Amino acid sequence: MIENTQLDVSGERFSVVYFITGNAAQAKHRAEHICIEQTIEFPAELIGDDDIRRHIFGRLESLSQVNETQWQAVISYAYEITGMNLPQTMNVIFGNISLQPGVQVNQLLLPDSFTQHFKGPRFGMQGLRELCNEPESPLFCSALKPMGLSSAQLAQQAYEFAKGGIHFIKDDHGISDQVFAPFRERVPLCVAAVERANKETGLSCKYVPTINTPANQIFADARWAKEQGVGGLMLLPGISGFDTMRCIADDDEIALPILGHPSLLGGMVSSAQSGYSHSVLFGQFMRLAGADVSIYPNFGGRFAFSREACLNIVQGTSCDMGTIKPIFPSPGGGMNLTRVPEMIEAYGRDIMFLIGGALHKGDKGVIENCQELRQLVNQQVSLLA
Amino acid sequence: MIENTQLDVSGERFSVVYFITGNAAQAKHRAEHICIEQTIEFPAELIGDDDIRRHIFGRLESLSQVNETQWQAVISYAYEITGMNLPQTMNVIFGNISLQPGVQVNQLLLPDSFTQHFKGPRFGMQGLRELCNEPESPLFCSALKPMGLSSAQLAQQAYEFAKGGIHFIKDDHGISDQVFAPFRERVPLCVAAVERANKETGLSCKYVPTINTPANQIFADARWAKEQGVGGLMLLPGISGFDTMRCIADDDEIALPILGHPSLLGGMVSSAQSGYSHSVLFGQFMRLAGADVSIYPNFGGRFAFSREACLNIVQGTSCDMGTIKPIFPSPGGGMNLTRVPEMIEAYGRDIMFLIGGALHKGDKGVIENCQELRQLVNQQVSLLA
Repeated sequence: MIENTQLDVSGERFSVVYFITGNAAQAKHRAEHICIEQTIEFPAELIGDDDIRRHIFGRLESLSQVNETQWQAVISYAYEITGMNLPQTMNVIFGNISLQPGVQVNQLLLPDSFTQHFKGPRFGMQGLRELCNEPESPLFCSALKPMGLSSAQLAQQAYEFAKGGIHFIKDDHGISDQVFAPFRERVPLCVAAVERANKETGLSCKYVPTINTPANQIFADARWAKEQGVGGLMLLPGISGFDTMRCIADDDEIALPILGHPSLLGGMVSSAQSGYSHSVLFGQFMRLAGADVSIYPNFGGRFAFSREACLNIVQGTSCDMGTIKPIFPSPGGGMNLTRVPEMIEAYGRDIMFLIGGALHKGDKGVIENCQELRQLVNQQVSLLA
Repeated sequence: MIENTQLDVSGERFSVVYFITGNAAQAKHRAEHICIEQTIEFPAELIGDDDIRRHIFGRLESLSQVNETQWQAVISYAYEITGMNLPQTMNVIFGNISLQPGVQVNQLLLPDSFTQHFKGPRFGMQGLRELCNEPESPLFCSALKPMGLSSAQLAQQAYEFAKGGIHFIKDDHGISDQVFAPFRERVPLCVAAVERANKETGLSCKYVPTINTPANQIFADARWAKEQGVGGLMLLPGISGFDTMRCIADDDEIALPILGHPSLLGGMVSSAQSGYSHSVLFGQFMRLAGADVSIYPNFGGRFAFSREACLNIVQGTSCDMGTIKPIFPSPGGGMNLTRVPEMIEAYGRDIMFLIGGALHKGDKGVIENCQELRQLVNQQVSLLA
């Protein structure tokens, strides 16, 4: 029996909305189990009527039915069990319970007094609009590819995308630091190519390298890239960890737009009964970890996200999160020009188009393809109310 | 059209076994899609008959039927697209394709010439047996809990576990750096408590703190813990990233046993049709990332891993991986003494028992409960052939 605990129990609490699969009795049982598993992870009957029970235990604030098989449990946690840092916050929200089927993290309810401990996105949607001098139109992103090209070839491609007016020209997510295009050779060449194009066009397109290097190098690589003059950084939080992205986003010596890529995150949203909701993973956690842009596979492309899942992501990128700014959703993955009208219809103006391979197709060449894309998008946007 | 690529195409290849859901035609289509998606991520028809096609493309080595709905595709990749580092290796194996349903990473086939670029577990199963003077018996691990206790209370618990002969006494995975038991206060107290017990017993039990701190502190925290005299480190690669664990495991100034905890990894194994197989995630990747022990929820406990899944993990912890040592499986999660016979039956001698809350139950106290557990296990082991 645990006794004699003396805690400051005056502190505030944040809440997590879990969707639980089962009947009423199962849902209640599972919700109560979450309250224990995510906190004390200890036989509750061995805890007396003390401060641990009153304050450290997760608290089931409400339980209500969502549909025939799912229940919504709102569970609150004391701020201080998160250590006020992201890794432990993620651990409290879903750490062990991720190993149980039938429990999905559906929404995070984070008061201002909690989010103020996180910087969140440095630029956010509004900041990127100002940086790109695009007060209300969609933004454009494309990717340097395929893997296997030399640094010089990738830089030439970067030049063409910049000439075509693409705002953010990123490395493909699989281009990191390989012998055929080493990181420290590629980055300066691509920076120079985009600068050359910008001088010719008067635009301010930005080269964004992929930073997916070993954990003991990644911070130094990000700072080095900044020194080379890159215009943003693409991070893969599913591989490097969300908190690694947060540290790079928070670094005032770097102070660059951050693009969050979904690599490896698919397993966390592959079931409607477990893992995270799309809005939590690609919206709320991306924001909490400092991404200004959340990249994800658009509906109808070569991936299998549904339209509903994509709009759920938009909700996560834009919902109220206290002091944490809204960010750009950037749907991509097999997009092409014929999809533009339907994407504008679904997303409106607040979208960063991510179109890659399609800009290489046809007889016209990359620059003209980019210009055609921009014209088409602007045309469609002008049709909006 | 991409042309004029000149690559060294003489290099070796490693292979990944994917399980693909669908009929024969779908499986072939998906397998071919993986070859592109995980490498060039670009319209294949725009690549000429060149070195990128010959060498960078994933190569479908074989495709065969597993059961009514699943196919096994063996796909090989050129070493150099991984940059010979773990983050990009994980990206190549499953990065984007994780976002597709119906594709599971089932097994990694890594030749010696590939694994020699990774140190893997420093101790491995055999090294831990030597460190603990336990040439053939099971090892024991327990956890300091519940969250909310003071550092002094946790240290007292550590003392009792050490008196009871538990080899590895770890922090609960949710105990990181909270006001009620700050990391830099708790660690020295627990080290001292275990040392005091070791002096009394003549044993060499080890205190293992949880290291789940922000990404820009975690390496310093791990080194600091080593300086305090801890006997191992528990990492949460699902939160911190597998490569962060690898860096800490590889650090010759730390040189401690590493316990890999499954927090947040549940979503990656929650479906038999997608994510990773249990053996890849909790076996092969844990080893590649330097864990000496893989902790996971045992069958029949408060989690839902099946017996089959658990034995699949054992396979991953022990299968041939070239230069990478086998490691200890450590099943836990709601285990108690009545489960011992069935666990010995399933796992044999090569297991690290992880029993937490159950050692606090009953009238006898922690020390006596630990002794009883060890006796029971040794009794059961003596019945083995």
